[in-house]
Amino acid sequence: MTGRNAFYAQSGGVTAVINATACGLIQEARRLRLQQPGSIGKVYAGHDGILGALTEELIDTDLESDADIARLRYTPGGAFGSSRYHLGPLATHRRHFERLIEVFRAYDIGYVFINGGDGSMGAAWHLSQTLAELGYPLQVIGLPKTVDNDLVLTDTCPGFGSVAKYVATSMREAGFDVASMARTSTRIFILEAMGRHAGWIAAAAGLASGHEGEPPHLLLFPEVRFDAERFLARVEACVQRFGYCTIAAAEGLCDEGGCAIGALPQSELPSHTQAGGVGRYIAELIHARLGYKYHLALADYLQRAARHLASGTDVEQAHALGVAAVDRAVAGGRDIMLTLHRLADRPYRWEIGEVPLTAVANRERRMPAEFIAADGFHITDICRAYLQPLIEGEDPPPFRDGLPDYMHLGNHRVPRRLQAFLP
Amino acid sequence: MTGRNAFYAQSGGVTAVINATACGLIQEARRLRLQQPGSIGKVYAGHDGILGALTEELIDTDLESDADIARLRYTPGGAFGSSRYHLGPLATHRRHFERLIEVFRAYDIGYVFINGGDGSMGAAWHLSQTLAELGYPLQVIGLPKTVDNDLVLTDTCPGFGSVAKYVATSMREAGFDVASMARTSTRIFILEAMGRHAGWIAAAAGLASGHEGEPPHLLLFPEVRFDAERFLARVEACVQRFGYCTIAAAEGLCDEGGCAIGALPQSELPSHTQAGGVGRYIAELIHARLGYKYHLALADYLQRAARHLASGTDVEQAHALGVAAVDRAVAGGRDIMLTLHRLADRPYRWEIGEVPLTAVANRERRMPAEFIAADGFHITDICRAYLQPLIEGEDPPPFRDGLPDYMHLGNHRVPRRLQAFLP
Repeated sequence: MTGRNAFYAQSGGVTAVINATACGLIQEARRLRLQQPGSIGKVYAGHDGILGALTEELIDTDLESDADIARLRYTPGGAFGSSRYHLGPLATHRRHFERLIEVFRAYDIGYVFINGGDGSMGAAWHLSQTLAELGYPLQVIGLPKTVDNDLVLTDTCPGFGSVAKYVATSMREAGFDVASMARTSTRIFILEAMGRHAGWIAAAAGLASGHEGEPPHLLLFPEVRFDAERFLARVEACVQRFGYCTIAAAEGLCDEGGCAIGALPQSELPSHTQAGGVGRYIAELIHARLGYKYHLALADYLQRAARHLASGTDVEQAHALGVAAVDRAVAGGRDIMLTLHRLADRPYRWEIGEVPLTAVANRERRMPAEFIAADGFHITDICRAYLQPLIEGEDPPPFRDGLPDYMHLGNHRVPRRLQAFLP
Repeated sequence: MTGRNAFYAQSGGVTAVINATACGLIQEARRLRLQQPGSIGKVYAGHDGILGALTEELIDTDLESDADIARLRYTPGGAFGSSRYHLGPLATHRRHFERLIEVFRAYDIGYVFINGGDGSMGAAWHLSQTLAELGYPLQVIGLPKTVDNDLVLTDTCPGFGSVAKYVATSMREAGFDVASMARTSTRIFILEAMGRHAGWIAAAAGLASGHEGEPPHLLLFPEVRFDAERFLARVEACVQRFGYCTIAAAEGLCDEGGCAIGALPQSELPSHTQAGGVGRYIAELIHARLGYKYHLALADYLQRAARHLASGTDVEQAHALGVAAVDRAVAGGRDIMLTLHRLADRPYRWEIGEVPLTAVANRERRMPAEFIAADGFHITDICRAYLQPLIEGEDPPPFRDGLPDYMHLGNHRVPRRLQAFLP
């Protein structure tokens, strides 16, 4: 007896550990179909996520060895390709949903796993509802994934712990560099971190600071409206007191007008400065107003791809969620997203829970007020207690010839059975 | 019988391993003065390098425990502070040299170790010559240090191997990220690397590419004049062939006019673009001309401070040079810089040599023509054979609470004995 097959889609921006979730999911499916025949069949992965289902670009994960699937655990990026493709409303995009039914029926797909953020959970719910309405009920299960840590109802999101560890480490290291030369050279260092709507990643940089005076000195969050005069006064006070000032700024910083600062029209910037990112804006502002030389780092994709410095906690959680998704699917779960539930801070204990997709879809969690220092420029001890366990543990990949030995799967496409389809 | 004391100065931009050199030097001095009484006395470190000698801001390294000195091996930045201070010519700055003699005499300094790049070796030679002329002969020994890898007559420079490992790892990781989403999102990724005059660091990013088509696809070196049309044609061909294009660009890239591209006046840039760094220039150029969405990373200090990802080879060489400097000093060495001499590529074998300070002072080593691919956009196999051993080996620092457990020395200043001096 063969169980129904599964379709797995990576969705949205990739992370250092999304493949660890894929690894856990595929490993558990392989284990279960041997031990509980009829429970689950093949795992097909969509090439570029849900887009691969529309185009019938399906990857047969059975064609990968157990050893290669195990190596997914330590390979960053999205092994099968990811996308932010929107299926659209049924009223105007009925052909999308009819195509999905055609493909899912052809491959006897009974389980769909969507590995993504809040937008992807909205898409997962929409998919489930629409296909049920059209007479093809599926068990859709969401798996959290986002470096932004902005999903509600879960303690954290896989991907965040690793980017948090990366930015905190990077800030600590750069801080040692700047401190060495501040008296005669550069006094200002700015690290621009990801985070368009929430300051979780910039907050994590704050973990590098063990006590007052240690880098980073100032954090800039999207949750706190940027007040240039207050900020400049703090920078100057910091330089006077410690000899230098290090800053982690979230890319989504907003000013009194509410717009993202990096997107300000050039005419509104101080003269002779360039727009194009919050970090550069802040740097030029300090230079123009206080006259200090600055250095600016823009970690960009480096931060979310840095598997070499992944958090052990993050890797473990990402993998465990993949395993649990299969277990809950064969137990009948549907229209849920799996969550991480914190039982204790220190030592950190957690378990896997679940919430309805509707409870998390298209909702963003910003930093609570009690996580942000009263002056708006740093994190509180409550925030530290929350963040600390998420960056703990090291789980380096194997190295070969001095570099991480990451792996490309074969990604063998299933030969097409259906007519071509142009989404 | 007490040997003469030593003065150790960190000079110029700091690295992930300059403290490993300090560690080796202090450890060897401690060992020798026990085993060969009279050979060497205390090691004083200058606060902010040579500046600390002028201002009599001396750090007595004897006040640090053996355990803390050992921890220097894995702590980035310059533990005693570094500077690029210029003493000036004797004719106009005689008081500087007289002051140095006053301080060195007061502390019975017989050995001076300058840990820096080609400019610092010039300063070391100038110091040695001038003080001898003024009747205070010293044994001055230079220790190489620069992420730029641009010192002549040494196989490599401590600091470079680690930044090389960092940029190659970062490029590989970002490459996995970009490849995951290129079909539906970002097709262009640019990493701006350090290297104002020489392309060594950008070249090292090339190690991430095991075969054609693997990131990075294109490298931009200061040694190759930037030709925008040829470059854009290669970017487009790369996107057509592989679906995306990843680029590592040295910050010192030059165009036909010979000027650093990041310094071009804004009027010469394509309209609506912003100057301020080669990476952004290249990114905006691609966007304006080819229309592709891009992501840009600016590693800045992160690359040279990334001790968490240091090259084992680099750490070992940096430490060994510190040890050797003391040995050569007590054996009578003077006016030399220690070098690394390559005996074999694979397995890498090396030994420590020496050259006169005059042979390395103020000379820069750019990449030889045979290291650069015929089309100017990548490295050759000869270059790979040279670079490969320099990034090999991992030597991670200890971690505590999820972050590298770097250390601040006490840096106890010797109480001042002399009149204050304003340099």
